[in-house]
Amino acid sequence: MNHTESRAERSAVIPGGAASVAEKKTGRVEAFSDGVFAVAITLLALDLHVPHLAGASGGSLAAALAQGWPSYLAFVTSFFTVLIMWVSHHSIFKLVHRTSARMLFANGLLLMLTTVVPFSTSLVTEYLRFAGAKVACAVYGGTFVLISLAYGLLWYVLLHDRALLKPDASEELIQRIGRNYRVGPPAYALATVGAFLSPYITVGICTALWIFWAFTARGECR
Amino acid sequence: MNHTESRAERSAVIPGGAASVAEKKTGRVEAFSDGVFAVAITLLALDLHVPHLAGASGGSLAAALAQGWPSYLAFVTSFFTVLIMWVSHHSIFKLVHRTSARMLFANGLLLMLTTVVPFSTSLVTEYLRFAGAKVACAVYGGTFVLISLAYGLLWYVLLHDRALLKPDASEELIQRIGRNYRVGPPAYALATVGAFLSPYITVGICTALWIFWAFTARGECR
Amino acid sequence: MNHTESRAERSAVIPGGAASVAEKKTGRVEAFSDGVFAVAITLLALDLHVPHLAGASGGSLAAALAQGWPSYLAFVTSFFTVLIMWVSHHSIFKLVHRTSARMLFANGLLLMLTTVVPFSTSLVTEYLRFAGAKVACAVYGGTFVLISLAYGLLWYVLLHDRALLKPDASEELIQRIGRNYRVGPPAYALATVGAFLSPYITVGICTALWIFWAFTARGECR
Amino acid sequence: MNHTESRAERSAVIPGGAASVAEKKTGRVEAFSDGVFAVAITLLALDLHVPHLAGASGGSLAAALAQGWPSYLAFVTSFFTVLIMWVSHHSIFKLVHRTSARMLFANGLLLMLTTVVPFSTSLVTEYLRFAGAKVACAVYGGTFVLISLAYGLLWYVLLHDRALLKPDASEELIQRIGRNYRVGPPAYALATVGAFLSPYITVGICTALWIFWAFTARGECR
Repeated sequence: MNHTESRAERSAVIPGGAASVAEKKTGRVEAFSDGVFAVAITLLALDLHVPHLAGASGGSLAAALAQGWPSYLAFVTSFFTVLIMWVSHHSIFKLVHRTSARMLFANGLLLMLTTVVPFSTSLVTEYLRFAGAKVACAVYGGTFVLISLAYGLLWYVLLHDRALLKPDASEELIQRIGRNYRVGPPAYALATVGAFLSPYITVGICTALWIFWAFTARGECR
Repeated sequence: MNHTESRAERSAVIPGGAASVAEKKTGRVEAFSDGVFAVAITLLALDLHVPHLAGASGGSLAAALAQGWPSYLAFVTSFFTVLIMWVSHHSIFKLVHRTSARMLFANGLLLMLTTVVPFSTSLVTEYLRFAGAKVACAVYGGTFVLISLAYGLLWYVLLHDRALLKPDASEELIQRIGRNYRVGPPAYALATVGAFLSPYITVGICTALWIFWAFTARGECR
Repeated sequence: MNHTESRAERSAVIPGGAASVAEKKTGRVEAFSDGVFAVAITLLALDLHVPHLAGASGGSLAAALAQGWPSYLAFVTSFFTVLIMWVSHHSIFKLVHRTSARMLFANGLLLMLTTVVPFSTSLVTEYLRFAGAKVACAVYGGTFVLISLAYGLLWYVLLHDRALLKPDASEELIQRIGRNYRVGPPAYALATVGAFLSPYITVGICTALWIFWAFTARGECR
Repeated sequence: MNHTESRAERSAVIPGGAASVAEKKTGRVEAFSDGVFAVAITLLALDLHVPHLAGASGGSLAAALAQGWPSYLAFVTSFFTVLIMWVSHHSIFKLVHRTSARMLFANGLLLMLTTVVPFSTSLVTEYLRFAGAKVACAVYGGTFVLISLAYGLLWYVLLHDRALLKPDASEELIQRIGRNYRVGPPAYALATVGAFLSPYITVGICTALWIFWAFTARGECR
């Protein structure tokens, strides 16, 4: 446990240099995470299927494309939800200064659940207009419940071992980010339970959430 | 709104050091964007299909491969168009110095539309020789109209909050980049509308545009 | 062979600056490796298949999803095993300072075997409940035997040419990492051979190994 | 054309600092290229197909897997050939200092052809034991002829505008790299033409080439 003093030391020895030191120690976790987020978010588009109607007229192709609306809806909702998750990851890691094995695994859990999003999106696309829609949407909402809990876990791990955070991270900012992570789990739980009333409740809540975050996230990124 | 003075401060305190500071603050957005561009551009190649003719002679395999020309044409056109988009993203971000939530979402919209390119390319490949070609090419051109509008939006967001741009970004360069973004939307709109006359108008305009940009983009990258 | 003296020189000329110099020389190997790990780990999720039962009731969809448990089990096991591999790669490269062609190829072998994991995972998913399970699990375990041997090879190449390691890498840390690489090959060999008794021995050992490493890896990452 | 003097200036003003400045200006091209290489090399593994024999005994699964040898052979050959290409890209970019539009397009051409490798590998896998093998191997070899020509073009663009190279790049190293690029095109042309005698000539030459480069590349990476 030799990190407690080095934290103080570093900020003393290299005044103003703490940021660049921190950047270096978390560079690869961020690069790996960015890679996983980038691949997962791009794979969402694999769910947009080209209709196979080689002999069809332009009109029937247009009609077939129009029929694909559940896939476009699910694609846009999932894309921006994963984007928000990435922005959130970005906000957390701006405060992080070094890594620990525990934190790498909490981050790994988060990434694993993120790679499941194309699967649960595909489920919604396939079943939105059919009897299976409620189950499909419950799985979709449930994926986001788990992801938001994983964010909570990562944040808990970081708070539990403050030496991982930058020495100059303000207490107020830490509090503010912590408060944000209390919104996700209940909101997505509502979206999951709501699926059994109507699958459009799930899609509606998930859409409302990313739009809400897109327009209120302003503060954290500065 | 504490960023206006910090912009002046930074360039004063760290003479010549502004560039490296800026690099740090946009590093992850660029890495994530590079990841999405890299995955999307590589997925284009998934549209090149191996003909399944296990018992076939060499001659029939060669003929089947030759028949795949619409996929090669669409692949090359889309690859270089996405490459141009990446070069353009690169040019913009060389001027960017810090991030804002609004800018991250404008960038996200851009990336989302980019991940749709393999889908619209696949549509052209499948329908270019069939009756659906006009609709397929209109969707293809339309994707690029939306992407060029998203570039305009990103640029608008950046100009609207100049603190995001590097303090030493020359007014003249900013003007020049702005002018470039006025070419894309009408050119691609023409390619989209032209599809209804002939799908080859779309392919022709899109090909002409990337060739034109490849040979005139010289200035910006220095 | 002019690197032996330059190693001493560098640590002398730039006191405390060796770390940042090293970071620069291995930046691209790490970025490329992170990319391969990120793509391979995300492709694991492509093995989660949406059941195609368009007319099905919610109940039958739920049942079909529940039947997919071998794919969820294989997905989680493989994800965390690849994550451990990435954490391990990260630990090694924190000590590396420069590259050599030999090391790039040892690293390439490691990456090649890593990209095979989605294939062997898919094999387990498809056969876990059928007669082919023993063969499928032996291939799965065998893939990890080869990967752990490749880690041993990379480590051997690095120890063989100490100029590749940071001059300030402590002998004790080097010894400790070396000891860790002696656990993998026999443990995975056991998982491979055990497959012929029962495929669940393979899955059990692989699961136990990642859980064990997740909870004991603490030291190395600090 | 204001870059000629700035080249001299920079090396004068920041003694020994040229390397870090150069790193910054090519960072994104390298990151994007690394991304494309990483995705393309990982997609090679998608060509390893799980045999679909749900009711089969362990023995028939093992036999079916053994029958997949052309895919394993093609996978290993392509993986290491793309790895060599990446190592080569790495060697070139260590000398590069700034970007130009022309160079970004030459690099883009290279990346485009690289993303085609999974397609041509898949062609070899599917046809190696059938009548179409000669055509499939000619396409495979031809892809590498084009890639090696694209490397030549990139190198030509860099030599044509020396301001893109680091001021401290030694003439001798530049000569040596240039000589290396004269080996690829004729060797792969031979592999392509040889396909019409026997497809194994192509596979043999491509395998021999990556093994040769893996064991002789030593010098460049130091």
